[in-house]
Amino acid sequence: MQLKQILSLSQKHGLLLSSDPFKIGPIGSILMQNLNTEWLNSLVNNKEYPIFYDSDNFNDSYNFVKGLCSETLPFGIADTKSTQIEGNDVFSSLFSVSDYLRCNVFVAPTESMQFFHQWQRLRRMWWRKFSSTPGRYFTTDMQNNDGQHTVEIRAKYPWGEQLVEKLQMNESKQQSISEEQNECKFKNISVQSHHVSSEICKPVMFLNTVCDAYEELPFQDVKRVMFRFHRKLAPYKISFAVCNTYSSGVTIELYDLAQYLCKKLRTNNVSSLLLPKCTTDKLEQQYLQNDFIGVPYTVILNEGTLKNGVALLRSRDTTLKEQVHVSELPEYVDLLFKNY
Amino acid sequence: MQLKQILSLSQKHGLLLSSDPFKIGPIGSILMQNLNTEWLNSLVNNKEYPIFYDSDNFNDSYNFVKGLCSETLPFGIADTKSTQIEGNDVFSSLFSVSDYLRCNVFVAPTESMQFFHQWQRLRRMWWRKFSSTPGRYFTTDMQNNDGQHTVEIRAKYPWGEQLVEKLQMNESKQQSISEEQNECKFKNISVQSHHVSSEICKPVMFLNTVCDAYEELPFQDVKRVMFRFHRKLAPYKISFAVCNTYSSGVTIELYDLAQYLCKKLRTNNVSSLLLPKCTTDKLEQQYLQNDFIGVPYTVILNEGTLKNGVALLRSRDTTLKEQVHVSELPEYVDLLFKNY
Repeated sequence: MQLKQILSLSQKHGLLLSSDPFKIGPIGSILMQNLNTEWLNSLVNNKEYPIFYDSDNFNDSYNFVKGLCSETLPFGIADTKSTQIEGNDVFSSLFSVSDYLRCNVFVAPTESMQFFHQWQRLRRMWWRKFSSTPGRYFTTDMQNNDGQHTVEIRAKYPWGEQLVEKLQMNESKQQSISEEQNECKFKNISVQSHHVSSEICKPVMFLNTVCDAYEELPFQDVKRVMFRFHRKLAPYKISFAVCNTYSSGVTIELYDLAQYLCKKLRTNNVSSLLLPKCTTDKLEQQYLQNDFIGVPYTVILNEGTLKNGVALLRSRDTTLKEQVHVSELPEYVDLLFKNY
Repeated sequence: MQLKQILSLSQKHGLLLSSDPFKIGPIGSILMQNLNTEWLNSLVNNKEYPIFYDSDNFNDSYNFVKGLCSETLPFGIADTKSTQIEGNDVFSSLFSVSDYLRCNVFVAPTESMQFFHQWQRLRRMWWRKFSSTPGRYFTTDMQNNDGQHTVEIRAKYPWGEQLVEKLQMNESKQQSISEEQNECKFKNISVQSHHVSSEICKPVMFLNTVCDAYEELPFQDVKRVMFRFHRKLAPYKISFAVCNTYSSGVTIELYDLAQYLCKKLRTNNVSSLLLPKCTTDKLEQQYLQNDFIGVPYTVILNEGTLKNGVALLRSRDTTLKEQVHVSELPEYVDLLFKNY
């Protein structure tokens, strides 16, 4: 498994347009969008304390958010900022300036260390949740430096370790705010808040997801190459394969059925891929193509489907097919993608 | 109803940080995020023909997408581009350069005019769907100019008409691609594709949503001012109000229950707002605050809730309260926000 190989495969299948300069392709753009959504869901939405999202005016937003929270700790602000790339690992050498996803949480001094430990655990869990090789992720030992504690979440690859997220706990105020601004309340007592932060570089997150998902599996006599994206991240959740029946009327009817099902799924906001070339007499090749862009499930329609309404649903991960009645497909697919 | 009044109210409640220069605030950022998601869902995901999303390399993506679709029309590419603001209406005078959401669909010449008419209808429906005053939106007459047909979707406001989306049908090739690139297949015949496009300016879409949602309603003797955001767009879907019972033990228990419910809702990815100051003996004031940031439902917890488990769910739009058992709340809320 070589990085170069993964990058060229990504380029061939639209995840990347080019790796130098680094340009995300049309399939990759949806992956990036999904990663962003999951980041927002995990940090901004899914917490016990209020975190607000701000596009790029940290300082101004801070005052508003502090007021809204009646100055009561803990509260937080997540934002996106374009800065110089730090670090000297393989991924970061591919670009120089990039967007960082950041999250700052302000906590009471008495609780900050405990909070930081929990934060580390939660963030590592987040990376592992979406990985096909969860053991890849680990946290480094804590670096303590003048009241600043730093921990990195790293991923192990054959070509070296990769920094994916930097976590910090600062016993002093956040750089861009004044000491007066930093004074908040905790249990009705005025305190100088500590701040805990997370930093993720967007293209590094993207490349890490792609490389993490890349798999070469022995399959019968050949090597099966695929991107095993987590189903919440996969750019397309469902794809279609229509058997060529050599009777053009039937094939057209089957393609119409595929279009109908695709529309149904999209109405439920399930991102589905239906291509003109999905009509094929080489189903295996169609599967291969879907595995390359990491589509978790393929719906197979054949002559039988028109008679008894039964379609086959092939799973990318198991390569097994199960029977599903077309009328139950949208509901069944919803269930498949509901949980993490 | 004055624009200035709406802008200053938006600023007070975190939708905007400032209107000159135009800066979106922490509450507004979530609104912008939701608008983006709905745009993607409506254009990229929810169609009968394949549309791909690309962050900003239209020309390179075009070749990839054309290949993926076996050169068969129709197909499309949506992207985001930063350009100079066109138009001279009120909204566009607030900023000079901005991001545009664009969508290009390539269609066969024989079908292009019919497609364009349907496209107009669908896009107008999209704006109306999220509006509290759907009649506000109308399409202008078609301007024909040398094979280029232009229609604008506009919104009526007391201070004038506002361009919200520009739709075009071009009988010639898209500017940035060559004639050779423009040659595609339709029903197995080579044709020069026509292209249909849509252009939305992001901050105009944001301001239009805010102004559209602004309402002054007579309520008893006073004027009730609120942002009636569509429930899919509302930055926060649910907020909490805890009755102050003047027995601190009970109030703390109620606040803990609110935290538990909030966490439950967030686990279902329902964006919920729980602020430290939600404990109050002035419920009316809490409602007012929630109406200002357009939260569609408020959960009210009072002393009775601890005894019989029944909470009240107040609707922003009707101001009516209904009883919901706390154990059924997450499921009930899912139902409320499921459909458009």
